[in-house]
Amino acid sequence: MSTTQAMDRSAPVVGDCAARTLRERANAPIRVGILGFGGLGQAAGKVLAQKREMLWVAVADRQGYAYDRNGLNVDSGLKSDRSISDLIATGTEVDGYFLALPNLPNTFMADVARQFIASGWRGVLVDALKRTSAVEQLLELQSDLQAAGITYMTGCGATPGLLTAAAALAAQSYAEIHSVKITFGVGIANWEAYRATIREDIAHMPGYDVEKARAMSDAEVAALLDKTNGILALEDMEHADDIMLELAGICGRDRVSVGGVVDTRNPKKPLSTNVKITGRTFEGKISTHTFTLGDETSMAANVCGPAFGYLKAGVKLHRRGIYGLFTAAEVMPLFVR
Amino acid sequence: MSTTQAMDRSAPVVGDCAARTLRERANAPIRVGILGFGGLGQAAGKVLAQKREMLWVAVADRQGYAYDRNGLNVDSGLKSDRSISDLIATGTEVDGYFLALPNLPNTFMADVARQFIASGWRGVLVDALKRTSAVEQLLELQSDLQAAGITYMTGCGATPGLLTAAAALAAQSYAEIHSVKITFGVGIANWEAYRATIREDIAHMPGYDVEKARAMSDAEVAALLDKTNGILALEDMEHADDIMLELAGICGRDRVSVGGVVDTRNPKKPLSTNVKITGRTFEGKISTHTFTLGDETSMAANVCGPAFGYLKAGVKLHRRGIYGLFTAAEVMPLFVR
Repeated sequence: MSTTQAMDRSAPVVGDCAARTLRERANAPIRVGILGFGGLGQAAGKVLAQKREMLWVAVADRQGYAYDRNGLNVDSGLKSDRSISDLIATGTEVDGYFLALPNLPNTFMADVARQFIASGWRGVLVDALKRTSAVEQLLELQSDLQAAGITYMTGCGATPGLLTAAAALAAQSYAEIHSVKITFGVGIANWEAYRATIREDIAHMPGYDVEKARAMSDAEVAALLDKTNGILALEDMEHADDIMLELAGICGRDRVSVGGVVDTRNPKKPLSTNVKITGRTFEGKISTHTFTLGDETSMAANVCGPAFGYLKAGVKLHRRGIYGLFTAAEVMPLFVR
Repeated sequence: MSTTQAMDRSAPVVGDCAARTLRERANAPIRVGILGFGGLGQAAGKVLAQKREMLWVAVADRQGYAYDRNGLNVDSGLKSDRSISDLIATGTEVDGYFLALPNLPNTFMADVARQFIASGWRGVLVDALKRTSAVEQLLELQSDLQAAGITYMTGCGATPGLLTAAAALAAQSYAEIHSVKITFGVGIANWEAYRATIREDIAHMPGYDVEKARAMSDAEVAALLDKTNGILALEDMEHADDIMLELAGICGRDRVSVGGVVDTRNPKKPLSTNVKITGRTFEGKISTHTFTLGDETSMAANVCGPAFGYLKAGVKLHRRGIYGLFTAAEVMPLFVR
């Protein structure tokens, strides 16, 4: 099964108002919205502010939304008490949204996708979700996304995302892939800047699940972190890198493992984030390619950069009338200046 | 300038005989031809023999060609004394060709592309060329390739190719790229298995150029290698990684450097092939991502694997009616089972 059998030639691309508008401004900046304005969404706003090829025009989370067709800035704040669904419904001129939302509950990302499908909006959605089961839910929306004229790029953060794509690329040297092992190190000075992300991590720990982690108060999170000296050590996590590499035909999901260490009290990474791809070449040699991220690159840089790179790639697909669900493992992200 | 403004919606995809044939066998193996049957071409044949999704049906070099719509094998040999142009002219059923040809002289790859354009054949071409100037010549054929219905993937070997794509991917973490430094190590037991490749390398050495290296007799090559104890140390090579990353908008070509060490008397690599991507994140941090190839992977594995991965990606573009010139830095290669 391929997620990329996505083109619908019968879709009314030419003659469709939204598509024509996109085409007319082929050289204008891509108009970007950010859904979710926690730590990740705010970092995304800062990333966008440095991009000439993109214009940040919309933002929303549970507290409200802001929209300015001429551009927002990080300090714009949220100007309304309406919700994400209200922003979608206003029919604003947004080419693509980065869903900088925690996937809490585990059905949240698919629910947001359904809202976009129902709204009649056509464009590009990019998420940086983490869990395999969340991608499985989105796969069920494949034909609905295609019919709606939405190009949805899933798993486009750091892991899954950048590291999954690196694994897909590295796999090219091999006739058969034996294992893909992702090990991440994250250091953050203050976990309270990433309340939702930390809860998503805690949900992977023995004795926890998504609902239990989500329900934790800040005091309970702090108490847990006190017990571990601020360290979250995670193994065999449910991470969508596995299904993404399986869908790309690279290896079965059982050959992909993800783990890492999060230090919630130190911006220095406890280890260098890397992915190791081991396989057999056509001559029968066993070897391992390694992709290692520089320690000075933050989670925000490694998530937001790829997310907007995939958004740009998604816009290009969308302008060609190619809709549906794609993963980070099957499309090359494009550099956004 | 983008090399990917390549789609020609007016091209007669539906109704075109060759395209319809492609569509009818969407689930059949991709029929692949190999042009050039030196060391690289022979390795490519062995790689293809292990692929279920591809069928090797044609091969040609100066000594002749062989074609069998039901599949060749590495030992088929060349069954005719006709040339590459004769194979092209026979109108065989080939979905894509890997041009496993040395680019000697430096205009050879563009000349071959012109032959395909003139022949009326429609399909995918993939090369593993090395020099910047060779890509520049192909860029001039952009509109001709589009009009001819040819999807041409250039620079799709190891470097340029796999390492260029890794650089394009790694760039996603950064707001600005300061340098891309590719360092390769190649070890081959016997240089005479790669006579053309070694001459291409010699052409990068001080005091040599493409024509001078090409004109060297085997005895002259052997004498040169005796002087260097079999080692070729290469710096600041003219390598198309630079123009490919520039075309992808990632950085100016002056920020890309390629060098390496070739040991012609030892299959062990003299150093681990790697690419280092240094840049500035949106927060102003300077850092370096590193992608390192496993030492046990051969040049043949790292060139032929990506080449066929890009061929598969090119077939997908071609079936969507997307023609023209693409580089390894802007398309994700697809894994070929």
